[in-house]
Amino acid sequence: MLFQRLVYQIKTFSPKEINNHLSSFSMSSSPTRYINNMKYLNQQEAQGIDEELFNEYKFSLDQLMELAGYSCATAIANAYPKNYSTMKILICCGPGNNGGDGLVCARHLKLFGYKPTIFYPKRTEKRIFTHLVTQCEKMNIPFLDCLPTESKLIDFNFNIIVDAIFGFSFSGQLRAPFIDILEKLKLAKIPIASIDVPSGWDVEHGNPDGLQPEFLISLTAPKKCARHFKGKFHYLGGRFVPETLAEKYELNLPEYHGTDPFVLLKHDTNEKVCLFRSLLNLTAIFSNKNSIFFKIIFICLIIN
Amino acid sequence: MLFQRLVYQIKTFSPKEINNHLSSFSMSSSPTRYINNMKYLNQQEAQGIDEELFNEYKFSLDQLMELAGYSCATAIANAYPKNYSTMKILICCGPGNNGGDGLVCARHLKLFGYKPTIFYPKRTEKRIFTHLVTQCEKMNIPFLDCLPTESKLIDFNFNIIVDAIFGFSFSGQLRAPFIDILEKLKLAKIPIASIDVPSGWDVEHGNPDGLQPEFLISLTAPKKCARHFKGKFHYLGGRFVPETLAEKYELNLPEYHGTDPFVLLKHDTNEKVCLFRSLLNLTAIFSNKNSIFFKIIFICLIIN
Repeated sequence: MLFQRLVYQIKTFSPKEINNHLSSFSMSSSPTRYINNMKYLNQQEAQGIDEELFNEYKFSLDQLMELAGYSCATAIANAYPKNYSTMKILICCGPGNNGGDGLVCARHLKLFGYKPTIFYPKRTEKRIFTHLVTQCEKMNIPFLDCLPTESKLIDFNFNIIVDAIFGFSFSGQLRAPFIDILEKLKLAKIPIASIDVPSGWDVEHGNPDGLQPEFLISLTAPKKCARHFKGKFHYLGGRFVPETLAEKYELNLPEYHGTDPFVLLKHDTNEKVCLFRSLLNLTAIFSNKNSIFFKIIFICLIIN
Repeated sequence: MLFQRLVYQIKTFSPKEINNHLSSFSMSSSPTRYINNMKYLNQQEAQGIDEELFNEYKFSLDQLMELAGYSCATAIANAYPKNYSTMKILICCGPGNNGGDGLVCARHLKLFGYKPTIFYPKRTEKRIFTHLVTQCEKMNIPFLDCLPTESKLIDFNFNIIVDAIFGFSFSGQLRAPFIDILEKLKLAKIPIASIDVPSGWDVEHGNPDGLQPEFLISLTAPKKCARHFKGKFHYLGGRFVPETLAEKYELNLPEYHGTDPFVLLKHDTNEKVCLFRSLLNLTAIFSNKNSIFFKIIFICLIIN
């Protein structure tokens, strides 16, 4: 009973709740429940929203890519808090805008203290992309010429892979060099974080034989394929959608908390990990190791 | 003694500390102490850093303005959490980049649920600025044609003024219409939040007879005039400075916490308000009103 009650108390003590009471800090990690009527976009709708943002609302690609990449970096930092086992991040960038989001994401991860490395095999000569590369290079983010020969070497050298290869514009068949790249990523054992759409997936129907990322951040609104996502963390990012546009497309997006650049939609994690994190949270507060509180928690942990 | 000890425990339990332990959420409101050797830039240095960001690091104005304006909006939301007495924000935008930061800030404040109104009396025809205006208009942010005739009416209609009129490029004498505008703002009683440099101040020497904002957010690094800032909140924003650039100019910037887009450098507020907030924080956690802990806190509050 004592333990159950403690667990109950711990569960009431989530960062989100402190946030709701105080609004003085806000990066919430508590998942928002899936909203029943949240729209999952088909490819045409995703392209339509994108075009309206540029043509009607006059956003520039620089602006939207910056905000999208920034929300990816903050969501990754939220799912994988910085420590020795999450520091080294391999960011695989594709030839289009999804790759651009990856480059921006890498830059912000570097600013957050992670150690990103970029693999960007098929570059475009468009000004914005060459400039994003220069920004990363000047910030001493290393670029790989090729992926390690075996997936095991990826696992050995990195902690997380960011998949920024293809986004919502992808259709048709995979081509070289991305067939081999995706095959290697599929065999890697470290977590994969996909930006907007897991690469190689059909934007609407997914791909049961393709990558199975642990993390997905949908940008603007989830695409239909996100219904097939089986990983632990599903985030929504890209907090720039005007209300009128959201209404026009009946997006029914969940509410972002405070000033958060993302919403955690789903967080399937081991219950014990959750509990242990919450206990750590409490013990961090009552950091005086001699306190009775700390002892009770410690005894409960041992009993369990 | 009991009370002192409790206060001590409460002080140890700051959002920043939870953040340090868990890194699972991060918008910290705890002030970072002024760093002794943090550089205060003169006008030439500020311009030099700006030019390098564009020319050497290849950042675009769209990118930097987006990140700067976003950090202003999040810092304002941090200093003035959203409630009925902080909702209505008047954003006064000047003709240059400081005004652009204000337009971006207004858009993000709108997304955070505030009710911004923009006053932008001297517009430029440059593409980026006309697009920033369109974005705000399309997001139903109202634009004022002129300021209310009296400062009292500003106080009556708004809760906060954002001063995004002049930034670090300002020099020489004020001209129309900004002489009258600043005079009106000076007489207003609601808090003023200045972006980068309080408008009308000399970038290096300040202006003892000018605006006296309650809030200042320095962008990239504080300018020399920030030493004359006497308000409550001093933030640092614009988290995009590459390490190599910071080293070259010996900026000695304080460390940003987690993924925060700002650092709170100084927070002069009533001690009792601070204490009450901290107590609220704890009571929010132990929300079971029958808990012994809650009772102890309540008794302490009454005793005090």
